[in-house]
Amino acid sequence: MGKAGLPVSPLAPAAFPDLPVIEGVEFASAAAGVKYQGRTDVTLIRICEGASIAGAFTKSSTRAACVLDNQAKLAAGEGRDKGAAIIVNSGNANAFTGARGQESVDAVTGAVAQALGVPRGRVFSSSTGVIGEPLPHERIVAVIADLAAGLDAGGAADAARAIMTTDTFPKGSGALVEAEGGQIRIAGIAKGSGMIAPDMATMLVYIFTDAKIAPELLQQALDDGLGGSFNAITVDSDTSTSDALILAATGRAAAAEITSLDSDAGRAFTQALHGLMRDLAQQVVRDGEGATKFVEVRVTGAASDADAHRVAMAIANSPLVKTAIAGEDANWGRIVMAVGKSGAEADRDRLTIRFGDLVLAEKGWRSDSYDEDKASAYMKKQELLIAVDLGLGQGARTVWTCDLTHGYIDINADYRS
Amino acid sequence: MGKAGLPVSPLAPAAFPDLPVIEGVEFASAAAGVKYQGRTDVTLIRICEGASIAGAFTKSSTRAACVLDNQAKLAAGEGRDKGAAIIVNSGNANAFTGARGQESVDAVTGAVAQALGVPRGRVFSSSTGVIGEPLPHERIVAVIADLAAGLDAGGAADAARAIMTTDTFPKGSGALVEAEGGQIRIAGIAKGSGMIAPDMATMLVYIFTDAKIAPELLQQALDDGLGGSFNAITVDSDTSTSDALILAATGRAAAAEITSLDSDAGRAFTQALHGLMRDLAQQVVRDGEGATKFVEVRVTGAASDADAHRVAMAIANSPLVKTAIAGEDANWGRIVMAVGKSGAEADRDRLTIRFGDLVLAEKGWRSDSYDEDKASAYMKKQELLIAVDLGLGQGARTVWTCDLTHGYIDINADYRS
Repeated sequence: MGKAGLPVSPLAPAAFPDLPVIEGVEFASAAAGVKYQGRTDVTLIRICEGASIAGAFTKSSTRAACVLDNQAKLAAGEGRDKGAAIIVNSGNANAFTGARGQESVDAVTGAVAQALGVPRGRVFSSSTGVIGEPLPHERIVAVIADLAAGLDAGGAADAARAIMTTDTFPKGSGALVEAEGGQIRIAGIAKGSGMIAPDMATMLVYIFTDAKIAPELLQQALDDGLGGSFNAITVDSDTSTSDALILAATGRAAAAEITSLDSDAGRAFTQALHGLMRDLAQQVVRDGEGATKFVEVRVTGAASDADAHRVAMAIANSPLVKTAIAGEDANWGRIVMAVGKSGAEADRDRLTIRFGDLVLAEKGWRSDSYDEDKASAYMKKQELLIAVDLGLGQGARTVWTCDLTHGYIDINADYRS
Repeated sequence: MGKAGLPVSPLAPAAFPDLPVIEGVEFASAAAGVKYQGRTDVTLIRICEGASIAGAFTKSSTRAACVLDNQAKLAAGEGRDKGAAIIVNSGNANAFTGARGQESVDAVTGAVAQALGVPRGRVFSSSTGVIGEPLPHERIVAVIADLAAGLDAGGAADAARAIMTTDTFPKGSGALVEAEGGQIRIAGIAKGSGMIAPDMATMLVYIFTDAKIAPELLQQALDDGLGGSFNAITVDSDTSTSDALILAATGRAAAAEITSLDSDAGRAFTQALHGLMRDLAQQVVRDGEGATKFVEVRVTGAASDADAHRVAMAIANSPLVKTAIAGEDANWGRIVMAVGKSGAEADRDRLTIRFGDLVLAEKGWRSDSYDEDKASAYMKKQELLIAVDLGLGQGARTVWTCDLTHGYIDINADYRS
């Protein structure tokens, strides 16, 4: 969609899921022609009065104007009892666009505030696409009246399509939680395919729930889930200027208010939210630019969780590991290399390396049970598990990545054209 | 050579240089069939009695047996008045080969010690190639007598060929220093093409000089040069288990002994040595797997030299920057992204980005003088300069890298086969 003619990733789910409708949230999408032609590229989301809103954003020091604006508005916390909105465009990131970047944000969010009758401080925005090009924000402003007129509680799937760039499939995930007094529903959409090595939040992700929960608790539930979802994926080790995750809770569910994350309801909600976040994060990896393999890298036995993360990311980001996977070569020596370069504490003679159930290396040496034919056969699978046990302690971390293929280079060698 | 049928890098020098002959150093190369067929794959180097020897090695925590052995021998400093030797094989890295790795090192270095009549503690070794396969060291031992009989002061060029793996051209560099009492000569050879992101030393590099200089001073001169040479290059962000640099000074020059690096002779020698190290390091980048562009990344105005290094390496290692260069796309927005993800202090509104003499971005915004046609024309050059000024302080660092192309993936998707 973003890149004309890109085939859908072979790792894509069979279909976009049936997302639960979240009472108090409506979507509308339109074709504003920001950059792409012949497709939708702007999405407006209206959120009802009194919703709690949380967010997580890239730590990049060159983050985009809209990211800075969202962070300022969330910190100020103005108008929490009023309605809110999110406006998203694809095709242009409005990043490194100087003072004009903020002018564009003000123009777009101001027009939304006026059209929907919500405070400007409650209108959040995201832009994704080329960095450094001025955003033709007047094209977005021009479609806002139409968007406002077309808002629809069932519009999430169309929204997931409108926010795509080099994505080859729209990403959505839903969850239902049984709680005291009734059900809680959660629905999320995401985009992301390249420039994926989130540092805090990632990419563009919008998650909605009808749970009754205060903003501070909602933010805590979100923060707790990042390490096992968006901060545990990488496509190419490159961190975007535009990563943003916004989570809104409308409070319209029949279920009782969640007043503690340690309550039964709090735990059930958090578990469902985190599972949904992991699902969306994994969908981003499944749509990694040029990806043909989905890879789970599971590190255990590290001296600390931080060490486990360093090792897992060193493996998941290694171009040599990723090209070997693309070539279906069981080159476990490159796993040894990545462990060695990670900077984490490691001892050659305690290291165990498994591909799926196959033990390739242990005790500083190729395993006695090593079988090249079996290892090669395993590499032909589309979903792979690389497991490394460092044999040192209790530190553990799992991350997800994809292979590095000719497709990645085709997509990125002339992205701007 | 390493990978059958790989064309010579378009960035290769026109020819292997005429290296100065270093009195007291002899080379011999042979075809032992460690892995490759139809080419030389083992090199023996004999160094005269009384030479000073210095070294620098990878910091990888999974470094190869020969690296550990070299480090132990240099630290022990036994037999400094005796002769010395270096034995190198390509095709197998003898890394992650457990206790058998050290047995192989002992077998090979022991055989060399016996053949040349030098102490075992003065026989250094390197192995480069596949990680995790047992080294068939008996094949190397079998050719040592022939190697010892064929030692030749003019054999450096053949040695540079014998140590190649995926390299497409042999790498050598020479220098002459005019000093009190006569000339000092320096000659070095190197191999390296992929798994290049040195952390301390890198790859395999052997440098020889006839300078008279104590081991401690020689080591200091070497250490001082790493930051501007081997630690300032990257092909793919992957750090080898086998990186090793050995520098030997035979003391056979007519020039007076260098007793301080701060003397005229010390400065002249150090300058020449560092220039030669930089030349060899840049040749490794010029032979980066699949490389079609040689890129200098020059960062100035950083809050510290360490910050400048982080920014330069974030740019030089970014798959998105490197694929844009391969595609001749002046995608300077990805430079902004890389600055942002580096973790270094940065201020959007003080950042200046230049490609060659073209100012693309300044003051947080696309430059007024930006011209897409000129930028695109510049990207067609084979040698590129990416200059980033952070506008914050005096920190500066320059690193060298190459582009990321389909060739890299072709070479690495089935390296072991």
